[in-house]
Amino acid sequence: MADNRPIGVFDSGIGGLTVLREIWDLLPGEGTVYFGDNGRAPYGTKSKSTVIKYSLQNMRFLEEQDVKMIVIACNTASAHAYRTLAEASKVPVIEVVTPGAKAAAGATKNGRIGIIATKGSVNSGVYKDAVERFAAPGTEIYQQACPLFVSLAEEGWWDNDITAAVCKEYLTPLKEAGIDTLVLGCTHYPLLSSAIGKFMGPEVTLINAGKAVAEVVRDTLAEQGISGENSLRAFYTSDEPELFEDVASPFLGRGLPAGTKHFDTDRYSV
Amino acid sequence: MADNRPIGVFDSGIGGLTVLREIWDLLPGEGTVYFGDNGRAPYGTKSKSTVIKYSLQNMRFLEEQDVKMIVIACNTASAHAYRTLAEASKVPVIEVVTPGAKAAAGATKNGRIGIIATKGSVNSGVYKDAVERFAAPGTEIYQQACPLFVSLAEEGWWDNDITAAVCKEYLTPLKEAGIDTLVLGCTHYPLLSSAIGKFMGPEVTLINAGKAVAEVVRDTLAEQGISGENSLRAFYTSDEPELFEDVASPFLGRGLPAGTKHFDTDRYSV
Repeated sequence: MADNRPIGVFDSGIGGLTVLREIWDLLPGEGTVYFGDNGRAPYGTKSKSTVIKYSLQNMRFLEEQDVKMIVIACNTASAHAYRTLAEASKVPVIEVVTPGAKAAAGATKNGRIGIIATKGSVNSGVYKDAVERFAAPGTEIYQQACPLFVSLAEEGWWDNDITAAVCKEYLTPLKEAGIDTLVLGCTHYPLLSSAIGKFMGPEVTLINAGKAVAEVVRDTLAEQGISGENSLRAFYTSDEPELFEDVASPFLGRGLPAGTKHFDTDRYSV
Repeated sequence: MADNRPIGVFDSGIGGLTVLREIWDLLPGEGTVYFGDNGRAPYGTKSKSTVIKYSLQNMRFLEEQDVKMIVIACNTASAHAYRTLAEASKVPVIEVVTPGAKAAAGATKNGRIGIIATKGSVNSGVYKDAVERFAAPGTEIYQQACPLFVSLAEEGWWDNDITAAVCKEYLTPLKEAGIDTLVLGCTHYPLLSSAIGKFMGPEVTLINAGKAVAEVVRDTLAEQGISGENSLRAFYTSDEPELFEDVASPFLGRGLPAGTKHFDTDRYSV
């Protein structure tokens, strides 16, 4: 019952590489095809209808690569587009909000959970709903949009004075609320873990959903009997491959294999 | 010889509104159609080929609105796509790099000019070339990409401690080089004028090209005999109109007329 087709993974750009690395680490024998929509990134500041349209186009591309599963490795796309994609897809669709929410609900001891994410994710309310679904009754949830964090991560300012000041600006309300668990609800944020952790203090657990997502991928492959072996590790981007390769490595946590290709998913009408 | 058709103006999103306001102020009788490509913004981090494609699509849309002139109210699009658009267009195309470069060349007294812009604009070298074309021989030109400035402008952090720290990080090399003139080479940057001016000091002249661009528009209309009268002030965006209207006013410097419409220029194959 093996299925040796690759797993499809997409993100607005490079943030999803922080999820891909966890999939590689947990499932080194599986093949992957990654699509980064860098030509239209970021998604976090864009509207629900736009993010749904782009996500459908990206999924369409991955389907044409004959993947056995779609991983939405982007919190904003997961928040806005998961239901639409799951209904439209013939293969299982994995999103990143639920695993992070579940992990946070399991980690809190004092029943106060913080969520930091893009404006789009926060306004959708999807993260808050997901945490409420798994958390004990009476759990208090605090959300904060952190739009500057994406730019800081991409600029490489992961832990300097400016990042510390931005952390203070965004995170003070969460700290004052006394949370003991903080969901990093955007795939860019793990790069800022050190700065975020310093500001929040060691008593606050940071939840990076990447690992939990990889576990869901593993469990779903097993349940559906579609685990397999494939050495493919392909990369596509809707902007120029050189730009993608220039910024990808810190997110992937290692060197990127050569040979990223260009593809415009906007050619699909959805 | 009047031509009452409107002037078409496009930008990657809202930054071009800092140019539109100057056109309105200088030419209050002319009609305008503005297109903001918010669904694919920003352009400053994207590659030349991608920016050319998007700019051609945006121009195509404006042509279908029967405009008499195209204003590229975006420095990155001007740097990458002006030549392509000027060749493809049946009506005059105005860009924003040359007017700013000319103004800077005229303003410097010590022959040391700084240019701050997006990564795309800086890497294109187009701004530097333009300043060199107008400046006295021996003029020294210093460029600096300031990617965080766009996020700061959109977040509304125009003049706080974080913006001051980011200014220090980016602008210290220009200050140490002893420039007396600084081109704000991205349509978002005028919102940060106060913070930039405070860091650089009163002896440094900041060049906001918006006014100079409006003068080029006026002169071109006059030279070509296509001035006219039209009360149209239409707005289109490739994301949701509500999102556009939420963030537009500070850039436009006044309330936005109601009725922004949605349009996807990605439907054009170019």
